[in-house]
Amino acid sequence: MSAIALRGADIRAQARSGLLAGPTCGLAPDYLQANLVVVPEDLAFDFLRFCQRNPKPCPILDVTEPGSWEPRQVAPGADVRTDVPRYRVYRRGALAEEPTDISRLWRKDLVAFLLGCSFSFEAAMQRAGLPVRHLEQRCNVPMFRTNLPCTPVGPFRGPLVVTMRPLTPSQAIEAVVITSRYPQAHGAPVHFGDPGAIGISDLTQPDFGDVVTVRAGEVPVFWACGVTPQAVLMEAKPEFAITHSPGCMFVTDRLAEDVC
Amino acid sequence: MSAIALRGADIRAQARSGLLAGPTCGLAPDYLQANLVVVPEDLAFDFLRFCQRNPKPCPILDVTEPGSWEPRQVAPGADVRTDVPRYRVYRRGALAEEPTDISRLWRKDLVAFLLGCSFSFEAAMQRAGLPVRHLEQRCNVPMFRTNLPCTPVGPFRGPLVVTMRPLTPSQAIEAVVITSRYPQAHGAPVHFGDPGAIGISDLTQPDFGDVVTVRAGEVPVFWACGVTPQAVLMEAKPEFAITHSPGCMFVTDRLAEDVC
Repeated sequence: MSAIALRGADIRAQARSGLLAGPTCGLAPDYLQANLVVVPEDLAFDFLRFCQRNPKPCPILDVTEPGSWEPRQVAPGADVRTDVPRYRVYRRGALAEEPTDISRLWRKDLVAFLLGCSFSFEAAMQRAGLPVRHLEQRCNVPMFRTNLPCTPVGPFRGPLVVTMRPLTPSQAIEAVVITSRYPQAHGAPVHFGDPGAIGISDLTQPDFGDVVTVRAGEVPVFWACGVTPQAVLMEAKPEFAITHSPGCMFVTDRLAEDVC
Repeated sequence: MSAIALRGADIRAQARSGLLAGPTCGLAPDYLQANLVVVPEDLAFDFLRFCQRNPKPCPILDVTEPGSWEPRQVAPGADVRTDVPRYRVYRRGALAEEPTDISRLWRKDLVAFLLGCSFSFEAAMQRAGLPVRHLEQRCNVPMFRTNLPCTPVGPFRGPLVVTMRPLTPSQAIEAVVITSRYPQAHGAPVHFGDPGAIGISDLTQPDFGDVVTVRAGEVPVFWACGVTPQAVLMEAKPEFAITHSPGCMFVTDRLAEDVC
């Protein structure tokens, strides 16, 4: 079976069996991939409202019933405890472990959030012949904290984190049109051009991820990033939380081209 | 009757009766407005192919049968000889007169082209709360010849002419998304930022129209302009041609929101 024919369920099965314990970038590219955030029920309502009020960094794909590990809307029958290649477990805001299965850690009060990620729109950019520099350079996308505050809710507050992809102006215009069609994957950019206008002092010093080359004639284009809710969650230092490990996403059954 | 309730047919009737002999900007804003180009049949096929190969500056809304003055696709029953507020008549590429009616000049070999114009997308920008600087400053949009060549066909060749509207980056992103929905009105921008990258040396020296203020934090955003086919036509110096007078457009029966 070629990589292009794989379905979301195939990738989840590989993760569940332990065959896949690394990044899902480029796997089953037709299917929406998702950031995973798991928090106890006493934080879940505030976190859900935070996502709802900050939809560009936190597009909500699914929220489980308290105690349930099944994301019924986007992957009926799946299990968020086993179907992500690798997890990060946080205790009081500090990274505690990076297991490939969280079944033994599951609790009756946990709620799982699946939030859209940029892999889907990057596939669409590539289909349109647009460059995605960090994929060309085989590294992680550069991410930056901005001075744009998210709308705070309860204990959740902090700056918008953005990804950066360099493009020429005409490519950037095409990328805006294309990515605006994927609101469930962060949608259109939030800024282009002068990094200082959104509080980024140095493009060669990303806060997360890797440095990519900005060529002559290109401008940096910035999209809202799914690291935003994770950074906000860590700042709130919850007693217990679980996320996916960077790049190791939950792959849904929903096609990126579906109009939700 | 308030201005907002006027239909395309009402504006055409005002033009036909002589009540309206000036610009149509802001009139019947829900209806698509059009640039008019009239050429003899021996040039019409080349001109049509030129438009077809350069759709961003020349979105084709309608082409009449040779000798017919009725644009049946976008305004059945209308008369392009009387329904435009003011015309320009060219002989061998030189402006000869600016009448408000061209019935006495009509010939059996003339073909009329209606090409989309930017008024429709400007109305959509305003509905979205985006600034349109030349409307704020109550002047004409600044237009510039670029170094981007149109695809030539027969005698028709020349550079793309663009309009410029200053916006902040986040407004520009929204404007790209909005205007991309109006391919029949020039669609998404062709460039933003550095004017020199498309051969414009000085934003304070437009080739047509007026100068507008670019404020701190704004970038110039450039759209393909309907003056392009007129400039190309004049360069070809046809024996005889008629266009609308700048700003005095043909108002169609087609709603800007219609998906063509």
